[in-house]
Amino acid sequence: MVEKNEEVGVSRRNFLSGTGKLIAGTAIASSVLAGQTDKAEAYPFKNGFKYTKLDPKEVGRITYENYFKRWCASSVVAGFAELLQKKVGGEWKTFPIDAMRWAHGGLAGWGALCGTLSGAGTIIGLCTNDTDVAEAMVNDLAFYYSYTEMPSYKPAKPIKAEIKNMTMSSTPICHISVGRWMKAEGSAFLDAARAERCARVAANVAMEACKMLNDHADGKFVAKHKLLFNVAANGITSQNNCMDCHGKDVPSADTYATLEK
Amino acid sequence: MVEKNEEVGVSRRNFLSGTGKLIAGTAIASSVLAGQTDKAEAYPFKNGFKYTKLDPKEVGRITYENYFKRWCASSVVAGFAELLQKKVGGEWKTFPIDAMRWAHGGLAGWGALCGTLSGAGTIIGLCTNDTDVAEAMVNDLAFYYSYTEMPSYKPAKPIKAEIKNMTMSSTPICHISVGRWMKAEGSAFLDAARAERCARVAANVAMEACKMLNDHADGKFVAKHKLLFNVAANGITSQNNCMDCHGKDVPSADTYATLEK
Repeated sequence: MVEKNEEVGVSRRNFLSGTGKLIAGTAIASSVLAGQTDKAEAYPFKNGFKYTKLDPKEVGRITYENYFKRWCASSVVAGFAELLQKKVGGEWKTFPIDAMRWAHGGLAGWGALCGTLSGAGTIIGLCTNDTDVAEAMVNDLAFYYSYTEMPSYKPAKPIKAEIKNMTMSSTPICHISVGRWMKAEGSAFLDAARAERCARVAANVAMEACKMLNDHADGKFVAKHKLLFNVAANGITSQNNCMDCHGKDVPSADTYATLEK
Repeated sequence: MVEKNEEVGVSRRNFLSGTGKLIAGTAIASSVLAGQTDKAEAYPFKNGFKYTKLDPKEVGRITYENYFKRWCASSVVAGFAELLQKKVGGEWKTFPIDAMRWAHGGLAGWGALCGTLSGAGTIIGLCTNDTDVAEAMVNDLAFYYSYTEMPSYKPAKPIKAEIKNMTMSSTPICHISVGRWMKAEGSAFLDAARAERCARVAANVAMEACKMLNDHADGKFVAKHKLLFNVAANGITSQNNCMDCHGKDVPSADTYATLEK
């Protein structure tokens, strides 16, 4: 079981005028709207992809080393699947590690969702057998990704380059996350340093997911963050740092008027 | 095999000053930079998830009907997996349809990547056995999603509501895609109409993916679009409609200077 949503009670208008109760990284959740929405069913399900506790450091190392031939999404999948093939076997033996490779570069280079999250989410989904638990873990992972300075992972021996900076992305979006780091580092996208950074971020994400899955295996996983439910605040699926992307052109909330009736 | 990248030769500066050769939806690609980057290996791989040609209309119907209990990502997976369980069997029999449910709402409600693309990408990855082909299909699907007026899918009998509008998202990002439609329709996020819209979009995406996989099964899949490679234009993974999100605050390209050396 994971924590249930609770009302926070901040309107998008309050947020935009600066009078809301928000701080970056705070989950906004609401149950007051529960009666109005069609909540997808959350339920247990079964599959043949079993999990056994893994060493996060080993998962991180394999992920890091795989990045340079597999890129972000598949390298995270590899960090788990290569070990689970040996330690669990079963369906992992034929699991196609590169089936999610298209998620690299924020969806085949479109710069949208960071592929490390698609890769980790795939593993989490396969290993949890509970839609509620998987969603809670992915939500926690999105918070970790967005509000932690990364990469903190340090390889025993850097494969491509030494790098200096860690940055906070404030978003799970690929090109913003990468761009903020590039600006801090003074690095171009095609520099070896940028590849090194993304490889280390992939390791960080894989290690964090591994810790959650290990806790779940021990029956002690507890979600750190409530699910975002920014429909209450913004009238739509979203984060709460609208101006980070939209500058002064945050779209009008006029069309969301029925929420405030 | 899929088409190879070609140089287009437009700089981000030209694009932003309006003198570039870009139009929305045009793929920007470059091979001139190939020597500078670490291209992940593209290769064939094997797995037990076999594909057989399916009726796109049937895939669309199942996807549409599943949306209201499974939401976007899992409903697209269900559109394929429910049929493949019957027609192919094998590993599909135990495939956990809801393992990717966390991708709904643009990643557990974060509003990032539309879950229909994560769901369809998962199926494409499992069914193609070739990282190059899967990436080309997902890229084509991202173009379809972004630059087609949707939803065009019409159910025999609407489950939640009649809806009037189709809109072009110009992005694979969930909250922008949904927001543009909501504005056109005058609908709030929690209205039945919005759920109906996303269910129909899921059906459209699943049907388009099904057509590609059917072509691939016949050995005649050809990518319609070149891979985005906006590092040449923007110095980073991205689309080319920067100002849609960033307004006048498009981040400086100063840090990308080494690309222009």
